[in-house]
Amino acid sequence: MVNGKMNMETPTNVTIKGILGTLMASVDEKKKKRLISLGMGDPTAYSCFTTNIVVQDSVVQTLESQKFNGYSPTVGLLQTRTAIAEYLSLNLPYKLLEDDVYITAGCTQAIEVAISILARPNANILVPKPGFPIYELCAAFRNVEIRHFDLLPDKGWEVDLEAVDALTDQNTVAIVIINPGNPCGNVYSYQHLKKIAEAAKKNKILVIADEVYGHLAFGENPFVPMGVFGSMVPVLTLGSLSKRWLVPGWRLGWFVTTDPNGIFKNAKTVERIKKYFDICGGPATFIQAAVPRILEDTKKAFFTSMLCTLKQTCDICFEKINEIPCFTCPQKPQGAMAVMVKLNVSLLKDISDDIDFCFKLAKEESVILLPGLTVGLKNWVRITFAAEPSSLEEALDRIKYFYQRHSHHQCN
Amino acid sequence: MVNGKMNMETPTNVTIKGILGTLMASVDEKKKKRLISLGMGDPTAYSCFTTNIVVQDSVVQTLESQKFNGYSPTVGLLQTRTAIAEYLSLNLPYKLLEDDVYITAGCTQAIEVAISILARPNANILVPKPGFPIYELCAAFRNVEIRHFDLLPDKGWEVDLEAVDALTDQNTVAIVIINPGNPCGNVYSYQHLKKIAEAAKKNKILVIADEVYGHLAFGENPFVPMGVFGSMVPVLTLGSLSKRWLVPGWRLGWFVTTDPNGIFKNAKTVERIKKYFDICGGPATFIQAAVPRILEDTKKAFFTSMLCTLKQTCDICFEKINEIPCFTCPQKPQGAMAVMVKLNVSLLKDISDDIDFCFKLAKEESVILLPGLTVGLKNWVRITFAAEPSSLEEALDRIKYFYQRHSHHQCN
Repeated sequence: MVNGKMNMETPTNVTIKGILGTLMASVDEKKKKRLISLGMGDPTAYSCFTTNIVVQDSVVQTLESQKFNGYSPTVGLLQTRTAIAEYLSLNLPYKLLEDDVYITAGCTQAIEVAISILARPNANILVPKPGFPIYELCAAFRNVEIRHFDLLPDKGWEVDLEAVDALTDQNTVAIVIINPGNPCGNVYSYQHLKKIAEAAKKNKILVIADEVYGHLAFGENPFVPMGVFGSMVPVLTLGSLSKRWLVPGWRLGWFVTTDPNGIFKNAKTVERIKKYFDICGGPATFIQAAVPRILEDTKKAFFTSMLCTLKQTCDICFEKINEIPCFTCPQKPQGAMAVMVKLNVSLLKDISDDIDFCFKLAKEESVILLPGLTVGLKNWVRITFAAEPSSLEEALDRIKYFYQRHSHHQCN
Repeated sequence: MVNGKMNMETPTNVTIKGILGTLMASVDEKKKKRLISLGMGDPTAYSCFTTNIVVQDSVVQTLESQKFNGYSPTVGLLQTRTAIAEYLSLNLPYKLLEDDVYITAGCTQAIEVAISILARPNANILVPKPGFPIYELCAAFRNVEIRHFDLLPDKGWEVDLEAVDALTDQNTVAIVIINPGNPCGNVYSYQHLKKIAEAAKKNKILVIADEVYGHLAFGENPFVPMGVFGSMVPVLTLGSLSKRWLVPGWRLGWFVTTDPNGIFKNAKTVERIKKYFDICGGPATFIQAAVPRILEDTKKAFFTSMLCTLKQTCDICFEKINEIPCFTCPQKPQGAMAVMVKLNVSLLKDISDDIDFCFKLAKEESVILLPGLTVGLKNWVRITFAAEPSSLEEALDRIKYFYQRHSHHQCN
């Protein structure tokens, strides 16, 4: 049977977009409440999170020039690679070169490339819990084993370094670090990142540094790129324009060998990476061509203002969360766009877990949160605070009423 | 050792871009001859192959609307899927639905998705020889075995159907058909496509129909999409805006289940495909959003004029090839953008094979052709005729002089 050929094993992973889609579908439209989604890290629906006009104009310019309708090299346009190498080098103690930079279709493709490049029989990769489910889904498709180490909520979501040591064996190829953190909003200190680098060095594994939220730090700790420790341990730095420039839909990301000792620079590895890029459809050439001007001409004021808005919405979110008795937030976010909140279901009379909570909340209040189970923590929820302040306030107020209705001690 | 972790097997495949890059590097700049590349299927460098202003304006419009800076669903925007379903249905005896269409980063990603979705232990796929090397590279990365069937030069590059029967076993999952053909310029008749569909049905395998050159037919046979036979055998149709709209760098492609019997529509298969798209970085949302207007508003005159230019350049190319004694062209192209030419090295005194021919030609004449070995045929070359007529003439004149200098019977 032809259709027998389509009976294949599919990873069982839940995906964020999958569950958010189902949650959206369960909103009760008869309630006539405006849908407010705090489920996804895409703030572009809100006018306070609009990209800069310079960013947009740069792309209009390269498009209208008609010079960039053709193929780019599969590893990316030279000028784009050079511009990103210079941009990332600003925060490193050494200089990256254009050959260190490969252009990807968003950070998603950079993750896919990293996992696929490292895949080999019996390989395993260490990923944080809570974490970002694309790592797991991607590893499942590439037959790479995932091993979870905990992020410690009471220690600012720092990495459980003892777990890293315990989990590593001779087949462990890399550890994934997401900083600034999704889903936790952590921003690691220089000291903690150094300890992670030391642990990776000791265990002879590489670091995959997911810095898609790079520079989005508004708390005590400044953003330190993992590549700072690149001479101690080779680092694959993944990033994109998506979050800092507020254009996640443009799919312009990078995969960077942040590695002054040139571990990734042997001919065989470079050949493997380059060939892998030959089978990837990268981002549009004209968007790539706009990157040098985007990096050059985006004013500091744009970044400052965006961080200020993010800090404000984070403050609102944190304050409102503390008014909801069934929520506990162990750590106020210092960066990125989301916070993890512990859900105390014992205070609720008819909610069995985080999934149940999120589905009932969607149905009754038209508010979408991400169930913690999706990112590896049952009975937690992830709340994205990168939203219009008024929407954020309204959503959290609705959650408060929802709590009151479902509480054992009904308030009204 | 950390760098031990990077010692991985890399596919040994030659890639078109890899070899073209090396050829470019061997051009002797002291000759001060203008470089003319007839090596790649990207005609956008030539003003006679410029996209339509409507196409460009559609993207400027969606970009400037600021409505499409956010993420799209990973399978693509609904309006884009719908528009492509309608576009493809125009040439089919049944109607595709939006759910049949998945949006990809160019046809390259559509190929990668098709191979990855079908990958399973011991699977093999039948691909044409000569063919397009990305299939082989992609299969190597996904541990899928490739088996080659011949295209028959003396029968208009038709598929050797007996070989298809002989190569198929219980682990064969699909046959790849590229029509209009790259690298051969073939356009298959309805009857031949029907025979291919019958062979696939008999052998219980799917058809991967690479129609990236869809509608670029200017000879005797009109373009018939493989999906016409979708009720006989399930077809995965791959395509993109790249060639017909002359925007290969925009990376807007599609992966379509052209399958009225719904073989691909069982819940497990749909789940697998959807999840796979969750790990792919697709094309930019604003480019996707422009597709409905692009499909709607591109005037027929644009297509007609482009086909007319292609036919003209094909005629020039064919005529000039026939003036070069060491070249034999078994079949005048009827479509796409390239032709396969047999190289008679016995007429040349100091050329050992197609690779040697192409390298010496690049060095001495600053003309780039693709060695046939890259597409599976030793001592052939692929010539892209989608170039400015004057450049094409000059390049082929230079090849003629090159032949004369290297011929046993030196002419001057």
